[in-house]
Amino acid sequence: MMPATHGNAGQNNAIICLGCWDQMHVPIPIRGPLALPFRAFGITRSKMNPNICERAFRYVKKQNHVTSNATILFADIRGFTTLSERMDPVRLSNLVRIFHDRCAQAIWAHDGIVNKQMGDGLMAIFNFPIRIADHASAAIMAARDIQEHCTEALDSLKSNLDGLPDHLLGVGVGIHTGDVEIGEFSSFRSDFTAIGGAVNLAARLESQAGVGEILISPATAALATELAAGTEARMLQLKGIEHQVAAQVLLKR
Amino acid sequence: MMPATHGNAGQNNAIICLGCWDQMHVPIPIRGPLALPFRAFGITRSKMNPNICERAFRYVKKQNHVTSNATILFADIRGFTTLSERMDPVRLSNLVRIFHDRCAQAIWAHDGIVNKQMGDGLMAIFNFPIRIADHASAAIMAARDIQEHCTEALDSLKSNLDGLPDHLLGVGVGIHTGDVEIGEFSSFRSDFTAIGGAVNLAARLESQAGVGEILISPATAALATELAAGTEARMLQLKGIEHQVAAQVLLKR
Repeated sequence: MMPATHGNAGQNNAIICLGCWDQMHVPIPIRGPLALPFRAFGITRSKMNPNICERAFRYVKKQNHVTSNATILFADIRGFTTLSERMDPVRLSNLVRIFHDRCAQAIWAHDGIVNKQMGDGLMAIFNFPIRIADHASAAIMAARDIQEHCTEALDSLKSNLDGLPDHLLGVGVGIHTGDVEIGEFSSFRSDFTAIGGAVNLAARLESQAGVGEILISPATAALATELAAGTEARMLQLKGIEHQVAAQVLLKR
Repeated sequence: MMPATHGNAGQNNAIICLGCWDQMHVPIPIRGPLALPFRAFGITRSKMNPNICERAFRYVKKQNHVTSNATILFADIRGFTTLSERMDPVRLSNLVRIFHDRCAQAIWAHDGIVNKQMGDGLMAIFNFPIRIADHASAAIMAARDIQEHCTEALDSLKSNLDGLPDHLLGVGVGIHTGDVEIGEFSSFRSDFTAIGGAVNLAARLESQAGVGEILISPATAALATELAAGTEARMLQLKGIEHQVAAQVLLKR
Protein backbone atom coordinates (compact mmCIF):
# COMPACT_ATOMS: atom_id res chain seq x y z
CA MET A 1 0.00 0.00 0.00
CA MET A 2 1.29 3.43 -0.87
CA PRO A 3 0.17 6.65 0.72
CA ALA A 4 -2.31 8.04 -1.73
CA THR A 5 -1.20 11.64 -1.77
CA HIS A 6 2.41 11.47 -0.76
CA GLY A 7 4.94 13.29 -2.84
CA ASN A 8 2.41 16.02 -3.57
CA ALA A 9 3.60 18.49 -1.00
CA GLY A 10 0.94 20.52 0.67
CA GLN A 11 -2.16 18.50 -0.16
CA ASN A 12 -4.33 18.85 2.89
CA ASN A 13 -6.15 15.60 2.26
CA ALA A 14 -3.87 12.65 2.87
CA ILE A 15 -5.95 9.51 3.40
CA ILE A 16 -3.39 7.87 5.65
CA CYS A 17 -1.05 9.48 8.17
CA LEU A 18 2.04 10.53 6.22
CA GLY A 19 4.13 10.55 9.40
CA CYS A 20 3.32 6.96 10.41
CA TRP A 21 3.92 5.86 6.86
CA ASP A 22 7.28 7.57 6.55
CA GLN A 23 8.54 6.60 10.00
CA MET A 24 7.15 3.09 10.43
CA HIS A 25 5.55 2.09 7.12
CA VAL A 26 2.28 1.63 8.96
CA PRO A 27 -0.86 2.87 7.16
CA ILE A 28 -3.11 4.68 9.67
CA PRO A 29 -6.33 5.98 8.04
CA ILE A 30 -6.97 9.62 8.99
CA ARG A 31 -9.66 10.53 6.44
CA GLY A 32 -12.58 8.73 4.81
CA PRO A 33 -14.73 5.87 6.16
CA LEU A 34 -11.75 3.77 7.25
CA ALA A 35 -10.69 6.54 9.63
CA LEU A 36 -13.90 6.31 11.69
CA PRO A 37 -13.03 3.23 13.81
CA PHE A 38 -9.58 4.67 14.46
CA ARG A 39 -11.08 7.94 15.56
CA ALA A 40 -13.32 6.05 18.01
CA PHE A 41 -10.10 4.83 19.65
CA GLY A 42 -8.74 8.31 19.94
CA ILE A 43 -6.43 8.31 16.93
CA THR A 44 -7.11 11.76 15.58
CA ARG A 45 -5.34 14.15 13.24
CA SER A 46 -2.51 16.11 14.82
CA LYS A 47 -2.87 19.81 15.45
CA MET A 48 0.72 20.21 14.26
CA ASN A 49 -0.20 19.11 10.73
CA PRO A 50 -3.58 17.79 9.49
CA ASN A 51 -1.85 15.16 7.33
CA ILE A 52 -0.47 13.25 10.28
CA CYS A 53 -2.04 11.62 13.33
CA GLU A 54 -1.12 11.99 16.98
CA ARG A 55 0.22 8.43 16.73
CA ALA A 56 3.03 9.52 14.41
CA PHE A 57 5.03 10.61 17.44
CA ARG A 58 4.63 7.29 19.24
CA TYR A 59 7.54 5.95 17.26
CA VAL A 60 9.71 8.55 18.97
CA LYS A 61 8.19 8.00 22.42
CA LYS A 62 9.09 4.33 22.36
CA GLN A 63 12.69 5.10 21.49
CA ASN A 64 12.78 7.95 24.02
CA HIS A 65 14.31 10.26 21.41
CA VAL A 66 15.86 10.02 17.96
CA THR A 67 18.50 12.02 16.15
CA SER A 68 17.22 13.36 12.85
CA ASN A 69 18.48 15.73 10.22
CA ALA A 70 15.88 18.46 9.95
CA THR A 71 15.32 22.07 8.97
CA ILE A 72 14.09 24.32 11.76
CA LEU A 73 12.14 27.52 11.08
CA PHE A 74 11.39 30.28 13.59
CA ALA A 75 9.06 33.18 12.79
CA ASP A 76 7.72 36.06 14.81
CA ILE A 77 6.19 39.49 14.48
CA ARG A 78 8.91 42.14 14.55
CA GLY A 79 7.87 45.06 16.71
CA PHE A 80 5.36 42.95 18.65
CA THR A 81 6.55 44.33 21.99
CA THR A 82 6.07 47.92 20.73
CA LEU A 83 2.76 46.93 19.20
CA SER A 84 1.51 45.32 22.38
CA GLU A 85 1.99 48.61 24.22
CA ARG A 86 -0.11 50.58 21.72
CA MET A 87 -2.83 48.20 20.67
CA ASP A 88 -5.91 47.13 22.59
CA PRO A 89 -5.81 43.50 23.72
CA VAL A 90 -8.69 42.30 21.54
CA ARG A 91 -7.08 43.51 18.33
CA LEU A 92 -3.70 42.26 19.49
CA SER A 93 -5.03 38.75 20.05
CA ASN A 94 -6.77 38.79 16.69
CA LEU A 95 -3.49 39.77 15.06
CA VAL A 96 -1.69 36.85 16.72
CA ARG A 97 -4.46 34.47 15.61
CA ILE A 98 -4.23 35.67 11.99
CA PHE A 99 -0.43 35.45 12.04
CA HIS A 100 -0.39 31.92 13.49
CA ASP A 101 -3.05 30.68 11.08
CA ARG A 102 -1.29 32.05 8.00
CA CYS A 103 2.04 30.65 9.17
CA ALA A 104 0.44 27.23 9.71
CA GLN A 105 -1.08 27.19 6.21
CA ALA A 106 2.31 28.01 4.70
CA ILE A 107 4.15 25.41 6.80
CA TRP A 108 1.61 22.65 6.09
CA ALA A 109 1.68 23.45 2.37
CA HIS A 110 5.31 22.33 2.45
CA ASP A 111 4.83 19.28 4.74
CA GLY A 112 6.31 20.86 7.86
CA ILE A 113 4.80 20.75 11.35
CA VAL A 114 3.98 23.71 13.58
CA ASN A 115 5.70 22.40 16.67
CA LYS A 116 5.55 25.32 19.08
CA GLN A 117 3.71 28.59 19.52
CA MET A 118 4.94 30.91 22.24
CA GLY A 119 3.51 34.42 22.42
CA ASP A 120 3.59 35.77 18.89
CA GLY A 121 6.42 33.47 17.78
CA LEU A 122 6.38 29.95 16.42
CA MET A 123 8.73 27.11 15.60
CA ALA A 124 8.32 24.66 12.70
CA ILE A 125 10.14 21.42 11.87
CA PHE A 126 10.67 20.13 8.32
CA ASN A 127 11.57 16.47 7.66
CA PHE A 128 9.94 14.98 10.72
CA PRO A 129 7.70 13.05 10.92
CA ILE A 130 6.92 13.55 7.21
CA ARG A 131 10.09 12.88 5.23
CA ILE A 132 10.99 15.61 2.72
CA ALA A 133 13.81 14.95 0.26
CA ASP A 134 14.74 18.64 0.06
CA HIS A 135 13.64 19.95 3.46
CA ALA A 136 15.93 22.99 3.31
CA SER A 137 14.10 24.26 0.20
CA ALA A 138 10.70 23.32 1.66
CA ALA A 139 11.37 25.49 4.70
CA ILE A 140 12.54 28.43 2.57
CA MET A 141 9.43 28.20 0.38
CA ALA A 142 7.25 28.11 3.50
CA ALA A 143 9.07 31.18 4.82
CA ARG A 144 8.39 33.02 1.56
CA ASP A 145 4.71 32.13 1.80
CA ILE A 146 4.64 33.34 5.40
CA GLN A 147 6.14 36.68 4.42
CA GLU A 148 3.74 37.05 1.51
CA HIS A 149 0.56 36.04 3.33
CA CYS A 150 1.27 38.09 6.45
CA THR A 151 2.19 41.33 4.71
CA GLU A 152 -1.39 42.10 3.80
CA ALA A 153 -2.69 41.50 7.32
CA LEU A 154 0.02 43.64 8.88
CA ASP A 155 -0.24 46.41 6.29
CA SER A 156 -3.91 46.90 7.06
CA LEU A 157 -2.91 47.43 10.68
CA LYS A 158 -0.26 50.03 10.02
CA SER A 159 -2.72 52.62 8.77
CA ASN A 160 -4.56 52.46 12.09
CA LEU A 161 -1.51 52.90 14.29
CA ASP A 162 -0.24 56.43 14.63
CA GLY A 163 3.44 56.97 15.01
CA LEU A 164 4.54 53.39 14.45
CA PRO A 165 7.48 53.49 12.02
CA ASP A 166 7.06 51.19 9.04
CA HIS A 167 10.27 49.35 9.69
CA LEU A 168 8.96 48.23 13.06
CA LEU A 169 6.04 46.13 11.90
CA GLY A 170 6.42 42.94 9.89
CA VAL A 171 7.60 39.35 10.09
CA GLY A 172 11.12 38.01 10.69
CA VAL A 173 12.14 34.43 9.87
CA GLY A 174 15.25 32.37 10.70
CA ILE A 175 16.09 28.97 9.17
CA HIS A 176 18.82 26.43 9.89
CA THR A 177 19.42 22.79 8.94
CA GLY A 178 21.22 20.28 11.13
CA ASP A 179 20.96 17.24 13.37
CA VAL A 180 18.43 17.67 16.16
CA GLU A 181 17.16 15.47 18.97
CA ILE A 182 13.46 14.74 18.58
CA GLY A 183 11.39 13.44 21.48
CA GLU A 184 9.67 14.37 24.72
CA PHE A 185 12.02 16.16 27.06
CA SER A 186 9.80 16.39 30.08
CA SER A 187 8.68 13.53 32.24
CA PHE A 188 5.42 15.19 33.29
CA ARG A 189 4.14 16.24 29.90
CA SER A 190 3.66 14.74 26.44
CA ASP A 191 5.44 17.57 24.79
CA PHE A 192 7.04 16.44 21.60
CA THR A 193 9.74 18.80 20.31
CA ALA A 194 13.24 19.14 18.87
CA ILE A 195 16.27 20.36 20.81
CA GLY A 196 19.94 20.88 20.08
CA GLY A 197 22.38 23.45 18.81
CA ALA A 198 20.68 23.54 15.41
CA VAL A 199 17.39 24.63 17.01
CA ASN A 200 19.11 27.42 18.92
CA LEU A 201 20.98 28.67 15.86
CA ALA A 202 17.69 28.95 13.94
CA ALA A 203 16.17 30.90 16.86
CA ARG A 204 19.19 33.22 17.00
CA LEU A 205 18.96 33.90 13.27
CA GLU A 206 15.30 34.78 13.60
CA SER A 207 16.05 37.23 16.39
CA GLN A 208 18.40 39.06 13.99
CA ALA A 209 15.99 39.12 11.02
CA GLY A 210 14.56 42.52 10.14
CA VAL A 211 11.04 43.17 8.84
CA GLY A 212 10.38 41.11 5.72
CA GLU A 213 13.68 39.24 6.02
CA ILE A 214 14.37 35.51 5.95
CA LEU A 215 17.82 34.71 7.40
CA ILE A 216 19.24 31.39 6.22
CA SER A 217 22.23 29.64 7.75
CA PRO A 218 25.16 28.54 5.55
CA ALA A 219 24.13 24.89 6.05
CA THR A 220 20.62 25.52 4.73
CA ALA A 221 21.88 27.70 1.86
CA ALA A 222 24.31 24.96 0.81
CA LEU A 223 21.40 22.52 0.48
CA ALA A 224 19.01 24.94 -1.24
CA THR A 225 21.43 26.39 -3.76
CA GLU A 226 18.74 27.45 -6.23
CA LEU A 227 16.70 29.41 -3.73
CA ALA A 228 19.76 30.93 -2.05
CA ALA A 229 21.43 31.96 -5.33
CA GLY A 230 22.04 35.68 -5.69
CA THR A 231 21.04 36.53 -2.12
CA GLU A 232 23.00 38.94 0.03
CA ALA A 233 25.34 37.52 2.70
CA ARG A 234 25.46 39.11 6.14
CA MET A 235 28.06 38.39 8.82
CA LEU A 236 26.39 37.96 12.20
CA GLN A 237 27.77 37.60 15.69
CA LEU A 238 25.14 35.47 17.45
CA LYS A 239 24.75 35.07 21.20
CA GLY A 240 26.32 31.88 22.50
CA ILE A 241 28.03 31.08 19.19
CA GLU A 242 31.78 31.65 19.09
CA HIS A 243 32.43 32.12 15.38
CA GLN A 244 30.63 34.61 13.15
CA VAL A 245 27.84 33.18 10.98
CA ALA A 246 27.49 34.19 7.33
CA ALA A 247 23.70 34.27 6.94
CA GLN A 248 22.06 34.60 3.53
CA VAL A 249 19.32 37.22 3.51
CA LEU A 250 16.20 36.56 1.45
CA LEU A 251 13.94 39.53 1.15
CA LYS A 252 10.17 39.56 0.87
CA ARG A 253 9.20 39.45 -2.79
CA MET B 1 -18.51 23.08 49.32
CA MET B 2 -15.02 24.40 49.75
CA PRO B 3 -11.95 23.10 47.96
CA ALA B 4 -10.36 20.84 50.52
CA THR B 5 -6.76 21.88 50.10
CA HIS B 6 -7.00 25.42 48.78
CA GLY B 7 -4.97 28.09 50.46
CA ASN B 8 -2.16 25.63 51.15
CA ALA B 9 0.07 26.56 48.27
CA GLY B 10 1.93 23.74 46.68
CA GLN B 11 -0.03 20.78 47.93
CA ASN B 12 0.06 18.33 45.08
CA ASN B 13 -3.11 16.61 46.16
CA ALA B 14 -6.13 18.87 45.63
CA ILE B 15 -9.31 16.76 45.61
CA ILE B 16 -11.16 19.13 43.29
CA CYS B 17 -9.75 21.23 40.43
CA LEU B 18 -8.52 24.47 41.98
CA GLY B 19 -8.80 26.27 38.65
CA CYS B 20 -12.47 25.42 38.04
CA TRP B 21 -13.24 26.34 41.61
CA ASP B 22 -11.48 29.71 41.46
CA GLN B 23 -12.78 30.64 37.99
CA MET B 24 -16.32 29.26 38.03
CA HIS B 25 -16.99 28.00 41.56
CA VAL B 26 -17.65 24.58 40.09
CA PRO B 27 -16.27 21.58 42.04
CA ILE B 28 -14.71 19.09 39.60
CA PRO B 29 -13.26 16.03 41.37
CA ILE B 30 -9.74 15.26 40.15
CA ARG B 31 -8.59 12.81 42.84
CA GLY B 32 -10.24 10.09 44.90
CA PRO B 33 -13.22 7.83 44.05
CA LEU B 34 -15.42 10.74 42.89
CA ALA B 35 -12.90 11.54 40.17
CA LEU B 36 -13.33 8.15 38.44
CA PRO B 37 -16.60 8.86 36.55
CA PHE B 38 -15.20 12.23 35.44
CA ARG B 39 -12.05 10.58 34.18
CA ALA B 40 -14.17 8.18 32.14
CA PHE B 41 -15.53 11.23 30.34
CA GLY B 42 -12.08 12.51 29.59
CA ILE B 43 -11.80 15.08 32.36
CA THR B 44 -8.24 14.50 33.45
CA ARG B 45 -5.63 16.45 35.35
CA SER B 46 -3.80 19.10 33.37
CA LYS B 47 -0.17 18.63 32.42
CA MET B 48 0.37 22.32 33.23
CA ASN B 49 -0.41 21.74 36.91
CA PRO B 50 -1.62 18.50 38.58
CA ASN B 51 -4.03 20.44 40.82
CA ILE B 52 -6.21 21.58 37.94
CA CYS B 53 -8.13 19.75 35.22
CA GLU B 54 -8.12 20.33 31.48
CA ARG B 55 -11.63 21.74 31.94
CA ALA B 56 -10.30 24.75 33.88
CA PHE B 57 -9.52 26.44 30.57
CA ARG B 58 -13.01 25.92 29.16
CA TYR B 59 -14.13 29.03 30.98
CA VAL B 60 -11.70 30.99 28.83
CA LYS B 61 -12.57 29.15 25.62
CA LYS B 62 -16.20 30.10 25.94
CA GLN B 63 -15.35 33.75 26.36
CA ASN B 64 -12.72 33.55 23.61
CA HIS B 65 -10.20 35.31 25.81
CA VAL B 66 -10.11 37.18 29.11
CA THR B 67 -7.93 39.94 30.48
CA SER B 68 -6.31 38.95 33.75
CA ASN B 69 -3.69 40.42 36.02
CA ALA B 70 -0.95 37.83 36.29
CA THR B 71 2.73 37.33 36.96
CA ILE B 72 4.71 35.81 34.11
CA LEU B 73 7.96 33.91 34.68
CA PHE B 74 10.47 32.90 32.00
CA ALA B 75 13.43 30.64 32.73
CA ASP B 76 16.11 29.08 30.59
CA ILE B 77 19.56 27.56 30.75
CA ARG B 78 22.19 30.24 30.18
CA GLY B 79 24.89 28.97 27.85
CA PHE B 80 22.62 26.31 26.36
CA THR B 81 23.70 27.18 22.80
CA THR B 82 27.37 26.78 23.75
CA LEU B 83 26.54 23.64 25.67
CA SER B 84 24.63 22.11 22.77
CA GLU B 85 27.73 22.39 20.61
CA ARG B 86 29.93 20.52 23.10
CA MET B 87 27.65 17.94 24.63
CA ASP B 88 26.41 14.69 23.10
CA PRO B 89 22.69 14.74 22.30
CA VAL B 90 21.69 12.08 24.83
CA ARG B 91 23.20 13.96 27.76
CA LEU B 92 21.84 17.24 26.40
CA SER B 93 18.28 15.91 26.29
CA ASN B 94 18.66 14.46 29.79
CA LEU B 95 19.78 17.87 31.01
CA VAL B 96 16.71 19.55 29.48
CA ARG B 97 14.46 16.91 31.05
CA ILE B 98 15.98 17.46 34.50
CA PHE B 99 15.74 21.24 34.12
CA HIS B 100 12.10 21.17 33.01
CA ASP B 101 11.09 18.76 35.76
CA ARG B 102 12.75 20.77 38.53
CA CYS B 103 11.23 24.00 37.20
CA ALA B 104 7.78 22.39 37.13
CA GLN B 105 8.07 21.19 40.73
CA ALA B 106 9.03 24.71 41.84
CA ILE B 107 6.24 26.36 39.84
CA TRP B 108 3.56 23.91 41.03
CA ALA B 109 4.70 24.33 44.63
CA HIS B 110 3.59 27.95 44.32
CA ASP B 111 0.34 27.29 42.40
CA GLY B 112 1.61 28.46 39.01
CA ILE B 113 1.18 26.64 35.70
CA VAL B 114 3.91 25.58 33.29
CA ASN B 115 2.33 27.04 30.19
CA LYS B 116 5.02 26.62 27.53
CA GLN B 117 8.22 24.74 26.97
CA MET B 118 10.29 25.70 23.95
CA GLY B 119 13.76 24.22 23.58
CA ASP B 120 15.43 24.60 26.94
CA GLY B 121 13.26 27.55 28.00
CA LEU B 122 9.89 27.67 29.67
CA MET B 123 7.13 30.11 30.54
CA ALA B 124 4.95 29.99 33.66
CA ILE B 125 1.80 31.91 34.63
CA PHE B 126 0.85 32.78 38.22
CA ASN B 127 -2.73 33.78 39.14
CA PHE B 128 -4.50 31.88 36.39
CA PRO B 129 -6.46 29.65 36.57
CA ILE B 130 -5.60 29.21 40.28
CA ARG B 131 -6.08 32.56 42.01
CA ILE B 132 -3.13 33.64 44.16
CA ALA B 133 -3.54 36.67 46.40
CA ASP B 134 0.16 37.59 46.17
CA HIS B 135 1.13 36.18 42.77
CA ALA B 136 4.18 38.43 42.44
CA SER B 137 5.73 36.88 45.57
CA ALA B 138 4.65 33.38 44.52
CA ALA B 139 6.54 33.74 41.24
CA ILE B 140 9.66 35.07 42.97
CA MET B 141 9.63 32.18 45.45
CA ALA B 142 9.24 29.73 42.58
CA ALA B 143 12.19 31.38 40.81
CA ARG B 144 14.34 31.00 43.94
CA ASP B 145 13.41 27.32 44.12
CA ILE B 146 14.27 26.91 40.44
CA GLN B 147 17.70 28.45 40.97
CA GLU B 148 18.34 26.33 44.03
CA HIS B 149 17.16 23.01 42.61
CA CYS B 150 18.90 23.41 39.27
CA THR B 151 22.30 24.46 40.60
CA GLU B 152 23.16 20.97 41.76
CA ALA B 153 22.22 19.36 38.46
CA LEU B 154 24.21 21.90 36.45
CA ASP B 155 27.21 21.85 38.79
CA SER B 156 27.63 18.11 38.31
CA LEU B 157 27.82 18.78 34.58
CA LYS B 158 30.50 21.45 34.77
CA SER B 159 33.15 19.06 36.01
CA ASN B 160 32.70 16.94 32.90
CA LEU B 161 32.95 19.76 30.39
CA ASP B 162 36.44 20.96 29.66
CA GLY B 163 36.94 24.60 28.87
CA LEU B 164 33.43 25.77 29.63
CA PRO B 165 33.75 28.91 31.73
CA ASP B 166 31.76 28.81 34.96
CA HIS B 167 29.85 31.98 34.20
CA LEU B 168 28.43 30.37 31.06
CA LEU B 169 26.41 27.60 32.67
CA GLY B 170 23.41 28.21 34.91
CA VAL B 171 19.84 29.37 34.95
CA GLY B 172 18.44 32.84 34.19
CA VAL B 173 14.94 33.95 35.22
CA GLY B 174 12.82 37.00 34.31
CA ILE B 175 9.58 38.01 36.08
CA HIS B 176 7.00 40.69 35.34
CA THR B 177 3.46 41.40 36.56
CA GLY B 178 0.76 43.02 34.45
CA ASP B 179 -2.47 42.59 32.52
CA VAL B 180 -2.32 39.80 29.94
CA GLU B 181 -4.77 38.30 27.49
CA ILE B 182 -5.47 34.66 28.28
CA GLY B 183 -7.05 32.35 25.73
CA GLU B 184 -6.42 30.31 22.59
CA PHE B 185 -4.85 32.43 19.87
CA SER B 186 -4.89 29.96 17.05
CA SER B 187 -7.94 28.67 15.26
CA PHE B 188 -6.38 25.31 14.38
CA ARG B 189 -5.02 24.36 17.77
CA SER B 190 -6.22 24.21 21.36
CA ASP B 191 -3.24 26.08 22.60
CA PHE B 192 -4.07 27.96 25.72
CA THR B 193 -1.59 30.76 26.54
CA ALA B 194 -1.11 34.38 27.61
CA ILE B 195 -0.06 37.19 25.29
CA GLY B 196 0.53 40.91 25.62
CA GLY B 197 3.20 43.45 26.43
CA ALA B 198 3.59 42.06 29.95
CA VAL B 199 4.54 38.64 28.57
CA ASN B 200 7.13 40.13 26.25
CA LEU B 201 8.67 42.26 29.00
CA ALA B 202 9.12 39.15 31.17
CA ALA B 203 10.79 37.36 28.25
CA ARG B 204 13.10 40.33 27.62
CA LEU B 205 14.11 40.43 31.28
CA GLU B 206 14.95 36.75 31.21
CA SER B 207 17.14 37.22 28.13
CA GLN B 208 19.19 39.76 30.14
CA ALA B 209 19.51 37.63 33.28
CA GLY B 210 22.98 36.25 33.98
CA VAL B 211 23.75 32.87 35.50
CA GLY B 212 21.99 32.51 38.86
CA GLU B 213 20.12 35.80 38.46
CA ILE B 214 16.41 36.53 38.80
CA LEU B 215 15.47 39.83 37.13
CA ILE B 216 12.27 41.38 38.48
CA SER B 217 10.40 44.23 36.84
CA PRO B 218 9.52 47.36 38.86
CA ALA B 219 5.83 46.33 38.78
CA THR B 220 6.59 42.94 40.37
CA ALA B 221 9.02 44.44 42.88
CA ALA B 222 6.39 46.98 43.97
CA LEU B 223 3.99 44.14 44.78
CA ALA B 224 6.54 41.89 46.47
CA THR B 225 8.24 44.52 48.63
CA GLU B 226 9.51 42.07 51.23
CA LEU B 227 11.23 39.77 48.75
CA ALA B 228 12.60 42.64 46.68
CA ALA B 229 13.94 44.59 49.67
CA GLY B 230 17.68 45.20 49.63
CA THR B 231 18.19 43.90 46.10
CA GLU B 232 20.39 45.62 43.57
CA ALA B 233 18.72 47.73 40.84
CA ARG B 234 20.00 47.52 37.26
CA MET B 235 19.02 49.86 34.43
CA LEU B 236 18.28 47.90 31.27
CA GLN B 237 17.59 48.94 27.71
CA LEU B 238 15.30 46.19 26.41
CA LYS B 239 14.57 45.46 22.76
CA GLY B 240 11.26 46.94 21.63
CA ILE B 241 10.77 48.94 24.83
CA GLU B 242 11.35 52.68 24.55
CA HIS B 243 12.15 53.64 28.12
CA GLN B 244 14.84 52.04 30.24
CA VAL B 245 13.62 49.49 32.80
CA ALA B 246 14.98 49.46 36.36
CA ALA B 247 15.08 45.75 37.10
CA GLN B 248 15.74 44.40 40.58
CA VAL B 249 18.35 41.65 40.62
CA LEU B 250 17.86 38.75 43.00
CA LEU B 251 20.85 36.47 43.24
CA LYS B 252 20.90 32.76 43.86
CA ARG B 253 21.14 32.12 47.59
